[in-house]
Amino acid sequence: MMRIAVDGMGGDYAPQSTVEGAVEAANDFDLDVVIVGQEHIIKKELQKHKVTAGRLFVQHASEVVNMSDSPVTAVKKKKDSSISVCIDLLKKKEVNAVVSAGNTGAVVAAASLKLGCLCGIKRPGIAISMPTIRGVSILMDVGATIDSRPEHLLQYAIMSDIYARAIHKKVRPTIGLLNIGEEESKGTELLKETYRLLRDSKLNFIGNIEGRDIFSGKSDCIICDGFVGNVVLKVIESIADTTIHILKRELKKNIISQIGGLFLKAALNSWQKETDASEFGGVQLLGVDGAVIIGHGGSNTKAIKNAVKSASQSVELEVNRHIVDEIKKQEQVNNNNLKE
Amino acid sequence: MMRIAVDGMGGDYAPQSTVEGAVEAANDFDLDVVIVGQEHIIKKELQKHKVTAGRLFVQHASEVVNMSDSPVTAVKKKKDSSISVCIDLLKKKEVNAVVSAGNTGAVVAAASLKLGCLCGIKRPGIAISMPTIRGVSILMDVGATIDSRPEHLLQYAIMSDIYARAIHKKVRPTIGLLNIGEEESKGTELLKETYRLLRDSKLNFIGNIEGRDIFSGKSDCIICDGFVGNVVLKVIESIADTTIHILKRELKKNIISQIGGLFLKAALNSWQKETDASEFGGVQLLGVDGAVIIGHGGSNTKAIKNAVKSASQSVELEVNRHIVDEIKKQEQVNNNNLKE
Repeated sequence: MMRIAVDGMGGDYAPQSTVEGAVEAANDFDLDVVIVGQEHIIKKELQKHKVTAGRLFVQHASEVVNMSDSPVTAVKKKKDSSISVCIDLLKKKEVNAVVSAGNTGAVVAAASLKLGCLCGIKRPGIAISMPTIRGVSILMDVGATIDSRPEHLLQYAIMSDIYARAIHKKVRPTIGLLNIGEEESKGTELLKETYRLLRDSKLNFIGNIEGRDIFSGKSDCIICDGFVGNVVLKVIESIADTTIHILKRELKKNIISQIGGLFLKAALNSWQKETDASEFGGVQLLGVDGAVIIGHGGSNTKAIKNAVKSASQSVELEVNRHIVDEIKKQEQVNNNNLKE
Repeated sequence: MMRIAVDGMGGDYAPQSTVEGAVEAANDFDLDVVIVGQEHIIKKELQKHKVTAGRLFVQHASEVVNMSDSPVTAVKKKKDSSISVCIDLLKKKEVNAVVSAGNTGAVVAAASLKLGCLCGIKRPGIAISMPTIRGVSILMDVGATIDSRPEHLLQYAIMSDIYARAIHKKVRPTIGLLNIGEEESKGTELLKETYRLLRDSKLNFIGNIEGRDIFSGKSDCIICDGFVGNVVLKVIESIADTTIHILKRELKKNIISQIGGLFLKAALNSWQKETDASEFGGVQLLGVDGAVIIGHGGSNTKAIKNAVKSASQSVELEVNRHIVDEIKKQEQVNNNNLKE
């Protein structure tokens, strides 16, 4: 039986949403869930819910990593935090995957330090599934590594390609390199060299894409370094809020648009659902030796539940095994090139 | 009399919008306008309009820089392009400022190569005025320099500060450094060192800000390197289009929201006006020895007219003289620090 650990203490709405999401996942999906956190808090919260199917376990962890804790300090000083215990369970193979909506930096640090990288992978990266006009695209990396080298970005492209095939069921996903212009000569030295590596790879590389192409869904995978990806992600996350704030203000201005506002609610709700991270169930930290799904800090019950689903899919579809295979093939190509 | 050169051939809607915008500026503002471009085309376009006030001149330029031309090649090979001739007029002091909605890279290259930097400035940067929930903020640099060093970002902050005071009438503008977290320890080495320089400056530095803070108007000036700024700008530019696309699609889904859509039009128009770059009249290339306003490629008549207004304001308010003074002061501080 698949077994997923859920960090019960991580996220703005923990432990309510984490516990409820874990219970719903255990009830609806065919898997076991281990909620990790301060036992008395988790158990008290669990009393509100009924586990009708699946099996639910509680694993005590005495400490909690706060959003303001520095990632490395959190891992080194809070050895019994819910995040650390989750990763420990994964390392000991007592669970198949981990879901945490806690301090992203701490999750990345704990996973990197404790699990290490998948064979051949040089740096882990965070892949996020984003809604676009044409469907879903993957943006990677959104913040695991901020001083990437070209070979890291190539590996992100390989990992995104596999993720898009496995999770989004895309056939031969297109790969775009996030840059400030389409021409090969554009951008920093990092990007020029990455362009060459991607062009010479077997990936379905469609060249450089620009910021405006993210929403248009021009490529299935959008590759960038973690600094740029993180800034872009946070800009995008603020868009829905900003739009709704501004539309509400505009709608208040006169009675005609107030009436319009009433009718608009359905459309806005539908759109919000479409752009809602909770529908996509978190983001995966790819490249570490284990399935680690990172939830948004603001994860609600549905987001946690969907993140558990994503985690089980990643395990079932053997995303990590495919990554290792693909990286091996890439290394063989590189070795052959060196021999020639 | 103030005299502004308008690149008649630059932009997606040239020469219609450039000529009409130039005519409206000449009619409405107390200044002379020189339209630069292929004489027969400009004069033919001018026949559609009536110049009722001010004075309008045409300066022939035989060549046109296309959007696809590489910037440096454009400047070196098309010596008689409308962009080059505009900058030449500025260099010869035959005009006080230049407005171009043409190939941004070519405008930056022509201005940098022909005008050079203001005394003490190491790299030019593009400052764009962006609508936020609280008003207007400046984002700088959005693409003039993609391999910035900390001292360049410090100078961008100094220039943005002056621009925000002069053009947006802000008293002691706040300066934020675009980063991936608020803590001083966050981000790349470039940003950590820039943080120290800004903290030790006399600017009203409020620390690191994140992507989500751009729209909230957390700081009056947002400082970043040109690569990140350009990517972010293009993401933001695509938001309005994407939102409208998605809302329209949602509104078509059922009759109730279709009715809502009819009422919503006024609100959307009002919002679009608010986020419309044409309201802000382009962006200024700061740091070069001359007032150069860059219009968006999609500039309409109003955008060109407002860009001419921005250009005249920049000259009247002596933005460049203030920058030189401020940079001198900063250098004195640095020299004194070295002596101590």
